[in-house]
Amino acid sequence: MLNPVTNAIEDQLRGLLPEACFRPLTAGYLEEPRGRYNSTEGLLLAPETTQQVSDIVALAHRESVPIIPYGGGTGLVGGQIAPSGPKPIILTLERMNRIRAVYPTENVMIAEAGVILADIQACADENDRLFALSLASEGSARIGGNLATNAGGVNVLRYGNAREQCLGLEVVLPTGEIWNGLSRLRKDNTGYDLRNLMVGAEGSLGIITAAALKLHPKPVAQGTAFFTIKDPQAALELLALANAQMGGGVSAFELVHRQGLQFLSETLPEVRQPFEQQPEWMVLLDVGLPHGLDPATALEALFEAAVEAGLSDDGVIAQSQQQRADFWALRENIPEANRRIGSVSSHDISVPISRIPEFIQRGHQKLAEIGSFRINCFGHVGDGNLHYNVFPQPGKTRADHEDQRSQIKTAVHDLVHEMEGSVSAEHGIGRLKVDDLERYSDPTKLAMLKTIKTALDPKGIMNPGVIVRSL
Amino acid sequence: MLNPVTNAIEDQLRGLLPEACFRPLTAGYLEEPRGRYNSTEGLLLAPETTQQVSDIVALAHRESVPIIPYGGGTGLVGGQIAPSGPKPIILTLERMNRIRAVYPTENVMIAEAGVILADIQACADENDRLFALSLASEGSARIGGNLATNAGGVNVLRYGNAREQCLGLEVVLPTGEIWNGLSRLRKDNTGYDLRNLMVGAEGSLGIITAAALKLHPKPVAQGTAFFTIKDPQAALELLALANAQMGGGVSAFELVHRQGLQFLSETLPEVRQPFEQQPEWMVLLDVGLPHGLDPATALEALFEAAVEAGLSDDGVIAQSQQQRADFWALRENIPEANRRIGSVSSHDISVPISRIPEFIQRGHQKLAEIGSFRINCFGHVGDGNLHYNVFPQPGKTRADHEDQRSQIKTAVHDLVHEMEGSVSAEHGIGRLKVDDLERYSDPTKLAMLKTIKTALDPKGIMNPGVIVRSL
Repeated sequence: MLNPVTNAIEDQLRGLLPEACFRPLTAGYLEEPRGRYNSTEGLLLAPETTQQVSDIVALAHRESVPIIPYGGGTGLVGGQIAPSGPKPIILTLERMNRIRAVYPTENVMIAEAGVILADIQACADENDRLFALSLASEGSARIGGNLATNAGGVNVLRYGNAREQCLGLEVVLPTGEIWNGLSRLRKDNTGYDLRNLMVGAEGSLGIITAAALKLHPKPVAQGTAFFTIKDPQAALELLALANAQMGGGVSAFELVHRQGLQFLSETLPEVRQPFEQQPEWMVLLDVGLPHGLDPATALEALFEAAVEAGLSDDGVIAQSQQQRADFWALRENIPEANRRIGSVSSHDISVPISRIPEFIQRGHQKLAEIGSFRINCFGHVGDGNLHYNVFPQPGKTRADHEDQRSQIKTAVHDLVHEMEGSVSAEHGIGRLKVDDLERYSDPTKLAMLKTIKTALDPKGIMNPGVIVRSL
Repeated sequence: MLNPVTNAIEDQLRGLLPEACFRPLTAGYLEEPRGRYNSTEGLLLAPETTQQVSDIVALAHRESVPIIPYGGGTGLVGGQIAPSGPKPIILTLERMNRIRAVYPTENVMIAEAGVILADIQACADENDRLFALSLASEGSARIGGNLATNAGGVNVLRYGNAREQCLGLEVVLPTGEIWNGLSRLRKDNTGYDLRNLMVGAEGSLGIITAAALKLHPKPVAQGTAFFTIKDPQAALELLALANAQMGGGVSAFELVHRQGLQFLSETLPEVRQPFEQQPEWMVLLDVGLPHGLDPATALEALFEAAVEAGLSDDGVIAQSQQQRADFWALRENIPEANRRIGSVSSHDISVPISRIPEFIQRGHQKLAEIGSFRINCFGHVGDGNLHYNVFPQPGKTRADHEDQRSQIKTAVHDLVHEMEGSVSAEHGIGRLKVDDLERYSDPTKLAMLKTIKTALDPKGIMNPGVIVRSL
């Protein structure tokens, strides 16, 4: 049984921590970006050191008080908000925002959990290196949260998820003990992989306080292009062609549907669109190439091969850094256009890459059986990860379809499951998808998740209700 | 308490399994490559299906009988041999040797645990893809063992360890339950990372029966070269230069010391050496480049830059596939030459990459304080992973230094630990390094390893004594 954080416990905490750790609990800590979860209470603590985090957790462990770890607050599955249960400690990492060290020779940076992702990218850049994690909320998301949720983003195809950007971690465990696993080693086979257990655990097995991050050499030359494609199957064939020609140099391969372009025209007309006639399907591709190759030339050669293979009939290749930025701005504004239109239901799903065309076709069929919708299906097709978002027809609103939302969600998720996919590709489980996890996981897996949670957090104080239902 | 596999239990097993699963226990299953571990007994079982593995483990769980999973038998830390304890079941995966499916569009292959690594490479090649794991014992090592030990090898720099080649697993848990985690997805954030927990667990948390493996596009053009370097520091600078010029195209970067070349001259004179005068240090580097770049030209440009920077004064660039193979044969024969000389002590260690030169210098000093030795220090310098092997002077033998072996090991491992390194970079812990793990790990980590082992294998039947001391 968990207990609320009482005045008496707060007094104990005031004895342990400097005054600066206590901050007023403003609304931002009690709601999440899409307004799906709200909470009304909590004791906000902003520790500045790992030892302070440890002291807080040790006390919470002793008193069986729940702790909600809080990063940048940008998560989309309610992992950072506890709408029910006893009054928790909300532990924000925002004051643990130092970059402790950079080792350019090793391609390693040590950063505390509260450093904002964009600041990590900038620091890598100043050291002539690339930090490869890149996603829409990078200006406010914090690296601890990115790792806790194993964030994805646009560079996964070449560089992997957040998981792959991490060499080591410092974590405060549910007992308050500090595990110092801040290894800078590329190879270390000394026991079970505790790092990867913590990455993606969404704060339910401990609080990440710092990380050793992997940097990369900067690509010598980068190029970006939009190619129209005749259908999603052509996207897969174009990806194979690009992989064959670029020898691993394709860093992003994003599918865009006409619906997204129309939403942009409607809500963000200032965003420049690449084709006069909006094509039904197009891909945005990004390549990073070695010294001696001109990306525009390589992309032209790819375009010629794509036309010859009947995959594409139009393309634009960025001729400047500004144009590259414009191309990417289009892609990155699609979520904002979606928000302005207002979706009935949004899904962050993945399927085996070769089944994407079948998924899109069957998904549309299933939705047509439920009602009349506009579908914006876009995303990281190179990773098999689609954002499959369902919108009302013009003249209708999200509210008009309120009674169909759960039916739509079930239809899409059932299809994903049937097609060996995942109902949470990059956003995680949080509190939003615990039901889905239970519905779609094999019972052996669910039992293992519970066994691990119970073994490492026997009192169930760490982010209770996330991934594993509260004990 | 564990029980031996008795005749009564064997009778139960004969009731469960077809006759073909029972095989004579030959010597190969009772010893390991370096002759360090020997066992005298065991019931050898060779199941052909996952269900049979599950039936065996369920029975062993019920009867508290230890199980030793057996792959290709090539492990170097005694993970596959139980020299003490009650008579175990030795469960070989060799009959589970089917490649279940290949999905070239997805760059995925599903293989059973008993498939030999070289056969997986060949199958990928037939599908115009690359399976990136490559190591000296690939002709006999089996993929289940490679994953269970998170094997490394020569391509880690570009493609990662065995862990990074795996998308999903099928595992028989210590209770006999089958966890079907054979996902082909690139992105799937649905709960704790069970896959990475099993990879590197050396069979102590379950038996891997099949894996979804990641394939890669084949590099369009590959090139290989030897460059002399003036010292280990120059190797690091050359690596940075190569990374900058090749944009991520460097796939291997191996350090070779004159001692290795001399051992080759002495024991394998037929191996062709690249330089007339054996240099004190050289590197073997391998690059894979996109369409439009000639690797030999790119390597020449790199060599010129290296000379200009004062890093190298001689180099040879392979001009044919045969020459590439010859260059690699030199590197791959060094372990064999070492075996023929007979080491006093061998160490598979890693340190942060930037500290390699300091480690080599201090290691030599420490050993000089102990006695007079020949040191062959070579390996995967791009990963910070060195094989640091100590040999007697000519005229002496390994036996002459028997009393110094443990002193040497402690000196090297203490230094590695002091320098934030790992005493097991790619070979794992097995039974050989349990003492080291306990000596050098922080107690919080050790406690977590035990907690996880106890939670998932409460009776301690799975490969007892590996990683975590027998319960």
